Amino acid sequence: MNSIITGAFGFSGRYLTQSISDEVICVSRSKKNKTNIDNDNNYLVDCDLLNKTAANNLIKQYQPKTIYHLAGSFTQNFEEDYNSNVITTKNILDAVMQFSPKSRILLIGSAAEYGLIKFEDCPIKENAQLRPYNSYGLTKIYQKFLMDYYVNQYSLDIVMARPFNIYGKGASPLLFIGNLYKQISLYKSGDISRISLGNLENKRDYIFIEDVIKHYITIMKYGTSGEIYNVASGKATLTKDLLKTILDEEGLDLSIIDSNSRPIQANDSSVIFADISKLQRLYSDR
Amino acid sequence: MNSIITGAFGFSGRYLTQSISDEVICVSRSKKNKTNIDNDNNYLVDCDLLNKTAANNLIKQYQPKTIYHLAGSFTQNFEEDYNSNVITTKNILDAVMQFSPKSRILLIGSAAEYGLIKFEDCPIKENAQLRPYNSYGLTKIYQKFLMDYYVNQYSLDIVMARPFNIYGKGASPLLFIGNLYKQISLYKSGDISRISLGNLENKRDYIFIEDVIKHYITIMKYGTSGEIYNVASGKATLTKDLLKTILDEEGLDLSIIDSNSRPIQANDSSVIFADISKLQRLYSDR
Repeated sequence: MNSIITGAFGFSGRYLTQSISDEVICVSRSKKNKTNIDNDNNYLVDCDLLNKTAANNLIKQYQPKTIYHLAGSFTQNFEEDYNSNVITTKNILDAVMQFSPKSRILLIGSAAEYGLIKFEDCPIKENAQLRPYNSYGLTKIYQKFLMDYYVNQYSLDIVMARPFNIYGKGASPLLFIGNLYKQISLYKSGDISRISLGNLENKRDYIFIEDVIKHYITIMKYGTSGEIYNVASGKATLTKDLLKTILDEEGLDLSIIDSNSRPIQANDSSVIFADISKLQRLYSDR
Repeated sequence: MNSIITGAFGFSGRYLTQSISDEVICVSRSKKNKTNIDNDNNYLVDCDLLNKTAANNLIKQYQPKTIYHLAGSFTQNFEEDYNSNVITTKNILDAVMQFSPKSRILLIGSAAEYGLIKFEDCPIKENAQLRPYNSYGLTKIYQKFLMDYYVNQYSLDIVMARPFNIYGKGASPLLFIGNLYKQISLYKSGDISRISLGNLENKRDYIFIEDVIKHYITIMKYGTSGEIYNVASGKATLTKDLLKTILDEEGLDLSIIDSNSRPIQANDSSVIFADISKLQRLYSDR
């Protein structure tokens, strides 16, 4: 009885490995950024999930009770994101089908699948139209249909979380929040004297990484196979307000920020937030 | 001012090349089965659309007014169908974006995208839920989302036909109708004494290949960019009745048929037919 976490050294993976009390197999392809694993129950397996044989061997060896498939990429290079988000998933699902058909798998989607969200579509539900405006979102949709197919056709036990804007230390510097944390660190070390950010006047559905992890575990425990759950706060937070909160925690204030007050782009809705009633029912129904 | 037809030597491609009066560039990867091109306006270009450079050169050289992208596969090998149905499309779209952004492109989807159609969902509309039960249908869904993405993000001019059960001589022997024609030919030559077929008691939306081609041309002419059109008869035909019609045309009768009266499978709906009102409006709105 154990769990596998792929992408264990990514942003979410680092938080998740600390939160699971089962024996955890941390799977990682990348050689870099592997810190010591604090939890005695955890150990590390190197596995390139793009390699079908490696994926098969992994699943065959551990036959895990649960698989948190957090590995993925958002490079916006279609081929790379397709491999990281779709092919790794397909290799895991094929391996599970063959060697461990009772494993329960959590896949991680993205609000980027919804894409061109209009204010009147909010709060956005899981069955909303999918209209991605970047190739990352496109590959996450491909992953979603892969889930449907393996659930319908092979009765695999798969649930999907669809997170909105996650914040917390360790986020990728490619995203707004990660970029902010990176600049805060550079500011504190004296390497930069100002922090430059984009549009702060939009409202997004921000959710703290520790809440995200709690919801992932809940979805894994109680979610219905084949279903997707928005993972979000259900509220629209002004980006500037979130920024103030984070700066406050760091003992800084807004005066050090240079904000680019560029006009809102066609693809840049002013307000986006999620309907989280489906997620909430997983808690209330207990 | 010319047209490109990919998969020009496939089942639909052979009929289409005969029906277009423009100058036509027939694109084919496969070396086999290339018959002479009857129409003086047509000529043949060898091009492997999986090769990005080849696709770029093709589009750069001809800058076609229209592209009928009929190439594709339904091998049910996921990687192969993904390449034939998704990557060829992506290479064409990327090339069009770069070298011929005004080209209008027709993509060919499939009723297999709808997948698990229930009788109560019929007549099935284009916005129905997509629940494929084979990997071919899955790759066709991937192609559909690719269209959405290139239309939304790059304003490419793309329309999509979603054909149901096509019949006519030349259909792939992997499909019911193609298999029937193949056996008829073997029967006539004396190579077999009986024709063996599967379930004849289901009802499907059968449409004759020449009607399909007419609709493809109409969708190319009048369809709205980004939209999908069911290409079907709108009626449920008992497979046995279609069989009688075809045998009749061949001067044969039902007595030579061995039908497998296997019970209907979970995935095998007894009745499937399409809502074709969206297609019909393309004719009535003229």
